[in-house]
Amino acid sequence: MALKNIMLGIDIGGTNTVFGFVRKSGVVLKEYSIPTQSKKPAKDLIKRIKAEISEFLKQNKKTYKLAGVGIGAPNANYYTGLVENPPNLKWGDVNLVEIVKDILGVPVRITNDANASALGEMLFGAGKGMKDLITITLGTGLGSGIIVDGKLVYGSNGYAGEFGHVCIDFRGRYCPCGKRGCLEGYVSATGIVRTAVELLGKRICPSKLREIPSNHITAKLIYDLALKGDEIALETFDFTSQLLGVSCANVAMITAPEAIIICGGLAQAGDLLLKKTKEYMENHLISNYKNQIKILPSGIKKGNSAVIGAAALAWKEFSNI
Amino acid sequence: MALKNIMLGIDIGGTNTVFGFVRKSGVVLKEYSIPTQSKKPAKDLIKRIKAEISEFLKQNKKTYKLAGVGIGAPNANYYTGLVENPPNLKWGDVNLVEIVKDILGVPVRITNDANASALGEMLFGAGKGMKDLITITLGTGLGSGIIVDGKLVYGSNGYAGEFGHVCIDFRGRYCPCGKRGCLEGYVSATGIVRTAVELLGKRICPSKLREIPSNHITAKLIYDLALKGDEIALETFDFTSQLLGVSCANVAMITAPEAIIICGGLAQAGDLLLKKTKEYMENHLISNYKNQIKILPSGIKKGNSAVIGAAALAWKEFSNI
Repeated sequence: MALKNIMLGIDIGGTNTVFGFVRKSGVVLKEYSIPTQSKKPAKDLIKRIKAEISEFLKQNKKTYKLAGVGIGAPNANYYTGLVENPPNLKWGDVNLVEIVKDILGVPVRITNDANASALGEMLFGAGKGMKDLITITLGTGLGSGIIVDGKLVYGSNGYAGEFGHVCIDFRGRYCPCGKRGCLEGYVSATGIVRTAVELLGKRICPSKLREIPSNHITAKLIYDLALKGDEIALETFDFTSQLLGVSCANVAMITAPEAIIICGGLAQAGDLLLKKTKEYMENHLISNYKNQIKILPSGIKKGNSAVIGAAALAWKEFSNI
Repeated sequence: MALKNIMLGIDIGGTNTVFGFVRKSGVVLKEYSIPTQSKKPAKDLIKRIKAEISEFLKQNKKTYKLAGVGIGAPNANYYTGLVENPPNLKWGDVNLVEIVKDILGVPVRITNDANASALGEMLFGAGKGMKDLITITLGTGLGSGIIVDGKLVYGSNGYAGEFGHVCIDFRGRYCPCGKRGCLEGYVSATGIVRTAVELLGKRICPSKLREIPSNHITAKLIYDLALKGDEIALETFDFTSQLLGVSCANVAMITAPEAIIICGGLAQAGDLLLKKTKEYMENHLISNYKNQIKILPSGIKKGNSAVIGAAALAWKEFSNI
């Protein structure tokens, strides 16, 4: 019987690296998680990945063939294969594609995790069958991936899709990147907390949040209080939805996607975020764009999304999926 | 001797329609301008175009062969061939591609004028040799065309690239489109006048502009006064450059173009606009984007740009240019 191709998806984080085998259908056959040990060289991490997966490949050598590897990593450049001085890793500039190719002996591609997510949604998630879509991943920050005519947009420098640092208010909040008014300072777990804290100063209504030191307030806590009717928490989600809605309209009028897919933990905030975001987006679209663009939550099971996204890159590159 | 292919570029405006034959090199062989007569049906306009060009085609039938037509028109949809209820024409929804194909008997494509400009710059202008670029056309309004990986972005609805209606300030100026804070309300001939008028109220410095009714102030007048050192006029260009710079940074971080090309009359404003726009853009880019993206004035002779843009669409579609 012919061997079935599988792809290895690797998602490299500052603390842990997760990886796993993904079939053409998007099914994850096996998933692993190991500490990244970010102070050791990249080569060391890849050798440990090889050690972990060799058992599975040996046991299944009559069924599956590893056909390629897709990697999602911070500051990864699709064109060069480099991971360029990643913020949470002590690697400096390193050509991870070369290293993985040498150690695992199969074709390899790399991009950043947000781009990988976009491919994951198009191949296996909420964007299945679409040719034009955008994913926005809400976590501590805001990541994005842009797909135009079935292809991920990498741009002239390989770094396209930095939607988190688009300026939404040029007189606005300071961002750790050194600029002002970056979208990620408003629409992200961090941004939601900043909005709530600002509103505690601006409003005089009572709120449970007044009893908590501002550096202990979390987006999850604000969400839970919003469900209980806390005014500040509700206004926080309304303002977040407004800015996300305006920004979705803005990017929609640039690449005209069929859908904007919201990923990450906050995508679960349902009516409090996604429904309102859609309303605000519609208000900020010109007439020939209205009632066309969907706002959808991720269609990929939360725990698997990083590995599936990275593997989707390999499926996209090394097969005619 | 083999016949040389030429393309006909047609740019349809509310008042006049210009068209002309363009060679593969981008050279315009002959250009025409006739009144659009927007109250008559579209078919009438195309028949008059045919009457105008037939003499040239007859005289040159041993040298040139008309291989295709590209059309730039307001509210034109690339996918459907429709011009959908164009604002300054009494046509309703009309399939202009079908009409032109029937009357001229050659392959036809259509898009809006701003998209056509982007193709013109890539094939024959400042974007020659680039695969990722954006054009911003500053006139009464603000039009844009986005090219990713050598292809114009049409998006899921055929209307991608409506950068003039991206919101730059959600508490900002009202726009005739019904929204607030649209970029075109700030960065366009109209927007520049609005900024100057606003500043006349905000500032107390003397200005020649105080002697002119606000509905007589023009962008050209403000430009001339800025060159003479008028404070309000200078601040107007500075603010315009700031908003254009922020917006260039924003769109750059989405599709990562090699260059943003500024077209239209205001592109000639040189140091007063383009140089400052570049400075403001750099201030609003994240570190891995800095010092990479060019801001360039159009590389196409002003009078020819509409016809060259429209013909570029035909060259792009109907040859392997």
